[in-house]
Amino acid sequence: MTTMELAERIVATPLSSVPGPALAEAKRSLLNWVGVAIGAAQHPMVGMALRVGHLRGTRQDATVLGRTERTDMFTAALANGISSHIFDYDDTLLDTVLHPSAPVFPAMLAFAENTRVSGRDFLAAFVIGAEVEQRIAQAIYPSHYDRGWHITGSVGAFGAAAAVGKLMGLDRTRMAYALGLASTQPLGMREMFGTFTKPYHPGKAAQNGLEAAFLAREGFTSSLESLEAQRGFMFVTSESPRLERLTGGWGETWEILNNSYKPFPCGIVIHPSIDGVLRLRESHGLGAEAVSAIELEVNPLVLELCGKKEPHDGLEAKFSVYHCAAIALIDGWVGPAQFDDAKVSAPATVALRARVVARPSASIAEDQVRVTARLKDGRSVEQFVEHAVGSRHVPMTREQLERKFSSLTASMSPGRRNELMTVIWNFEAEPGVKNLAALAIPDATPGK
Amino acid sequence: MTTMELAERIVATPLSSVPGPALAEAKRSLLNWVGVAIGAAQHPMVGMALRVGHLRGTRQDATVLGRTERTDMFTAALANGISSHIFDYDDTLLDTVLHPSAPVFPAMLAFAENTRVSGRDFLAAFVIGAEVEQRIAQAIYPSHYDRGWHITGSVGAFGAAAAVGKLMGLDRTRMAYALGLASTQPLGMREMFGTFTKPYHPGKAAQNGLEAAFLAREGFTSSLESLEAQRGFMFVTSESPRLERLTGGWGETWEILNNSYKPFPCGIVIHPSIDGVLRLRESHGLGAEAVSAIELEVNPLVLELCGKKEPHDGLEAKFSVYHCAAIALIDGWVGPAQFDDAKVSAPATVALRARVVARPSASIAEDQVRVTARLKDGRSVEQFVEHAVGSRHVPMTREQLERKFSSLTASMSPGRRNELMTVIWNFEAEPGVKNLAALAIPDATPGK
Repeated sequence: MTTMELAERIVATPLSSVPGPALAEAKRSLLNWVGVAIGAAQHPMVGMALRVGHLRGTRQDATVLGRTERTDMFTAALANGISSHIFDYDDTLLDTVLHPSAPVFPAMLAFAENTRVSGRDFLAAFVIGAEVEQRIAQAIYPSHYDRGWHITGSVGAFGAAAAVGKLMGLDRTRMAYALGLASTQPLGMREMFGTFTKPYHPGKAAQNGLEAAFLAREGFTSSLESLEAQRGFMFVTSESPRLERLTGGWGETWEILNNSYKPFPCGIVIHPSIDGVLRLRESHGLGAEAVSAIELEVNPLVLELCGKKEPHDGLEAKFSVYHCAAIALIDGWVGPAQFDDAKVSAPATVALRARVVARPSASIAEDQVRVTARLKDGRSVEQFVEHAVGSRHVPMTREQLERKFSSLTASMSPGRRNELMTVIWNFEAEPGVKNLAALAIPDATPGK
Repeated sequence: MTTMELAERIVATPLSSVPGPALAEAKRSLLNWVGVAIGAAQHPMVGMALRVGHLRGTRQDATVLGRTERTDMFTAALANGISSHIFDYDDTLLDTVLHPSAPVFPAMLAFAENTRVSGRDFLAAFVIGAEVEQRIAQAIYPSHYDRGWHITGSVGAFGAAAAVGKLMGLDRTRMAYALGLASTQPLGMREMFGTFTKPYHPGKAAQNGLEAAFLAREGFTSSLESLEAQRGFMFVTSESPRLERLTGGWGETWEILNNSYKPFPCGIVIHPSIDGVLRLRESHGLGAEAVSAIELEVNPLVLELCGKKEPHDGLEAKFSVYHCAAIALIDGWVGPAQFDDAKVSAPATVALRARVVARPSASIAEDQVRVTARLKDGRSVEQFVEHAVGSRHVPMTREQLERKFSSLTASMSPGRRNELMTVIWNFEAEPGVKNLAALAIPDATPGK
């Protein structure tokens, strides 16, 4: 199957044909995305990206979530994409470890602020964008990822280009140009994990996808076989791609229905371990002072992706199963606060972290873990997690999503936060993105 | 050898230590670059890039060569990088088929227009930028190229980031961040050859490199092992990289001394064939009407890269050894005019092109060819080219470079053109880039 066939499917699928359940999941994705972006918006790296962006000009067309500055569409796409991923708290399609929202919503929001797009069309175009990026991801996973690509960056621009291109009404050839421009600039290597450059990946992918759509609309040509050609995206960045995934069964179901949301703001492969430690803590009333060692039997991927034994700061700690298990036992929860630099290097954390052991086991699935706590009194207690919370089998409830959203938007007044959640939960009825954008920035009215 | 060692070399090499011969070659590179960028500046794709760029940038602090619009630095880097490569007429480091100027000068010019950089420092920083990109290219060539990467796009951002970072005075760690940001976004697949997206590669690389330097200056962190890590740039995009090329022998000689300039605006592997046909034409007084067939014995790479038998337009014709051999015989020269769409599809061209045969031979080097013209009267004549004009063994002279520059700047008044050439040939003495930038745009004074 080919780039042109994929472009044809995107173009020929009416936004109005996207069914209710997919739109409903898109709203959950939107709520989660707005929350994580606002939550990390004050991080210094967002400011850096904005300062460099402002070297380009003074347009104020677009909103940066969680901040008062307005900026041009492309800088906003970059900044919102970065903030989406800083906490590693965004949504995940577990098949491919793709985070679908971070590269797509920022491009769409920036575009939609400058054109007429109804809330319903916005959600439907997101469903299509996520479909495109996840299908391309599936076609090249796992060899693409194994080779070292950070798949959220490297396929994210396809989602952004498809979603924005769909809202623009690009024809089939121009849609293929947009996919071609996305193809030629895969972005993001796994070596960057633990640095500012990791969240830069979805931000730049959002920006590149937005640019690809605009250039394609101008008629900027590209290969019409950019995905499947021997020296095109799939063969250059993976081995033996499954071309049939590009369009096979298109429209029969929607990938967004498999979306999952992280209860904890760190590498998703660590979640079973956190879940297991929290369950042990609760069911046995364990405190850190009673525990002499924590033993984790984990899927081999855990140590490959998140095996940092001695993280030096909060960013590195997100990739440390050792830190997460220790801090879960100490604090009884793992939220953004558990990755404060000070907390990561606190003596109590360091001491317990040193007593966490992780052993890879091929018999443990990615959403499983076996946790054993060795107690100072000689006993030990064990917890097996069959499916971690937030996994496909144990999805987060609406209430849990709202709790997460609230923890991420702690700086907002409750009234404003509720208003924003209401707008998102009723997004099909919104005439555009204006209300969302207006509510998702800091409240200038004290005491509101 | 490591990213940090490379960053250290860049930072620890004083601009004043770059020797005269390297600066002299940098001036030849600069003249050639300004010429090719002006020559293609009116191409529609430059206008498209500027229109999309203007959606972002309102600033007018940077010059677009050959055009009257001013724009922001990043859009200018993109636009000037695109125009540099449209004619496939830019300079080449033949070892790696890297075009060193197109991704580096545009980033440098945009930066230097907004800061205090002497002409001499500008040239010296270019020498260092070209050194960095070529060393990285050598470390991963040919497997990187074989895999499908367009090396000018994929390593170009390193050169731009290093050169601009050097002018900024980044420290070692920030220089490594800049290299890291370049590492994570290799750009350009060979599938794009023959479309607008090919010249987009060096343009976007210039823009990305400029952005990388600015972000690094802000302290935007990246891996400090981005090049050599298992999931970093070299291993992800090539097989068995030669890490020792990164810094081995640094400063003993300068890669820019190997730079070559194309006499003909098309794929460089075709140049021996054109040279051979032109020599046959001249020495035997041949006209197209006397020839029944042209047989080319070529290096195997020629057909792999430039084997388009029936090009449909000028862009495709640049990758057609058949077109180039035919048009060289018909017109007696191959310049930009020989790739006009109308000329490519003219019946006389099509008819002769059909009678060009190319046969790959492992005994023919990349800068060689054996041309045989079969004549209608039954005779045949042969020409063996040992080294094509423009190759390392037969470099273009200053006069030839000026002739090429003149053909590319035909729209300029001779006075203004001479003034611009004088500025470039004396660039060490220039206080900055202002005179160059002012002369390299269309003359607003009729009759000057």
